[in-house]
Amino acid sequence: MNRSQLIDTIKLKRSYLCIGLDTDPEKIPTHLHKYDDPVFEFNRQIIKSTHDLAVAYKPNIAFYEGQGLKGWESLQKTIRFLDSYKSSIFTIADAKRGDIGNTSERYAAAFLGLPPTGLNFDAITVAPYMGHDSVKPFLKIENKWAVLLALTSNAGADDFQNSRLENGQTLFENVLGTSKEWGTPENLMYVVGATKAEMLSAVRKIVPDSFLLVPGVGAQGGNLEEVSKYGMNSDCGLLVNSSRGIIYAGKGEDFALKARGQAKILQQQMEVALYDHRII
Amino acid sequence: MNRSQLIDTIKLKRSYLCIGLDTDPEKIPTHLHKYDDPVFEFNRQIIKSTHDLAVAYKPNIAFYEGQGLKGWESLQKTIRFLDSYKSSIFTIADAKRGDIGNTSERYAAAFLGLPPTGLNFDAITVAPYMGHDSVKPFLKIENKWAVLLALTSNAGADDFQNSRLENGQTLFENVLGTSKEWGTPENLMYVVGATKAEMLSAVRKIVPDSFLLVPGVGAQGGNLEEVSKYGMNSDCGLLVNSSRGIIYAGKGEDFALKARGQAKILQQQMEVALYDHRII
Repeated sequence: MNRSQLIDTIKLKRSYLCIGLDTDPEKIPTHLHKYDDPVFEFNRQIIKSTHDLAVAYKPNIAFYEGQGLKGWESLQKTIRFLDSYKSSIFTIADAKRGDIGNTSERYAAAFLGLPPTGLNFDAITVAPYMGHDSVKPFLKIENKWAVLLALTSNAGADDFQNSRLENGQTLFENVLGTSKEWGTPENLMYVVGATKAEMLSAVRKIVPDSFLLVPGVGAQGGNLEEVSKYGMNSDCGLLVNSSRGIIYAGKGEDFALKARGQAKILQQQMEVALYDHRII
Repeated sequence: MNRSQLIDTIKLKRSYLCIGLDTDPEKIPTHLHKYDDPVFEFNRQIIKSTHDLAVAYKPNIAFYEGQGLKGWESLQKTIRFLDSYKSSIFTIADAKRGDIGNTSERYAAAFLGLPPTGLNFDAITVAPYMGHDSVKPFLKIENKWAVLLALTSNAGADDFQNSRLENGQTLFENVLGTSKEWGTPENLMYVVGATKAEMLSAVRKIVPDSFLLVPGVGAQGGNLEEVSKYGMNSDCGLLVNSSRGIIYAGKGEDFALKARGQAKILQQQMEVALYDHRII
């Protein structure tokens, strides 16, 4: 999905919600364990119940990798199921990969490449520490995206990302400013943690046009209103993620309906923000 | 494998060689394609032919992930085969993972955890950008190791790792100094690229006792003699990796023997360095 299709989808659904499929076999409703692949069945019902409210889905790859081969099968089935909504859903592999050039090419092929070996996600999250040649291979594939970590929403973000460089910038500002030359707003987004909404102003000064993937609304404590206020640009420019707050909203047979209820609450707040910013 | 076992193995084999299993189906000898799993067969023959010369093996996970489910099967078979040499081989998943705490726990389970879902590697490479809570989950498992990226051997290392902070340190020095409080030399190693051998002196000032995993000897241009001169401590404290220079030394049916020849050249140089440093 390219940038203009993503913006069209946001306007159509009146939403910039990304649902994080951090699917933990131990947290899903127990009645699903009768299925051959409970993780996939959980994802399938969540997606089926929420796809008109969310513009993006983001499986966190660790949750699948942690289940070994079986987990990779669940992931493969999930992305194939998402394909049936391909024209209206943006898919992000939350993998936080990054390695030297010839190795990042392999990760790009694994997550952005075509089946049977590639998973054919629209985007993948990428770690910046190893620099340009670790990121560029993800930017070379047409209509695919890299989502580079800039400022994350965890406590450890303060260890290095907020370190002050001798030129006065913080490291995360330097990551934004340096990396924006490697791609364009058509193929490069940034992860910016929602626990620090006021920092979105600093981010917007450096990358006014880029899409930002904002995790941490909900369980990690971010505030949607603040995020929209400081982060939205004239194309919306935001994908706001919620994982646990949506997917684990219910424990019973109606878990997917409960998830829809939570997604609807966020979508309605997003609709207001989009209206206030005259985007819809 | 714990630290004292690793040091004993280095002394026994008179080697601190790590062989990188960056196994590319397109680069392995064509006669192997008659096997059900050519990648595993290649790895099996390489390991069988070199295990007395190498103390560690390091599959780069991207090469397996890039092959989809089939790649994960090859990886699983490879680590199970390495298990048959478990008492004398240290295994490193070169995965460069890192995410918020509850997610890093999943990656730790995937790579360091026990079968059937865990791959049971001794160690995993980890990216530092997300800070302490992204790294600590890898340090919690007994007798297992995190190998944190400090200074990598690629061109992009200059983008951020060598950035000067306002306290005068470079970012990679800050990563070393900050992170050494998260673990101990018993469970935390560092990746330090061999293309910058003189920088090993700066590294040793900050982490005198830690093991360093040094990639880039061979194809990436590092010099073993320099690395040993600046990086070795009284316990050796080095694992020096070579991937392509060893595993692709031959193209014919004798590829494993050719690989052994290259491994032997490095092992003999290492034996001299260990002797010069009075470690053996």
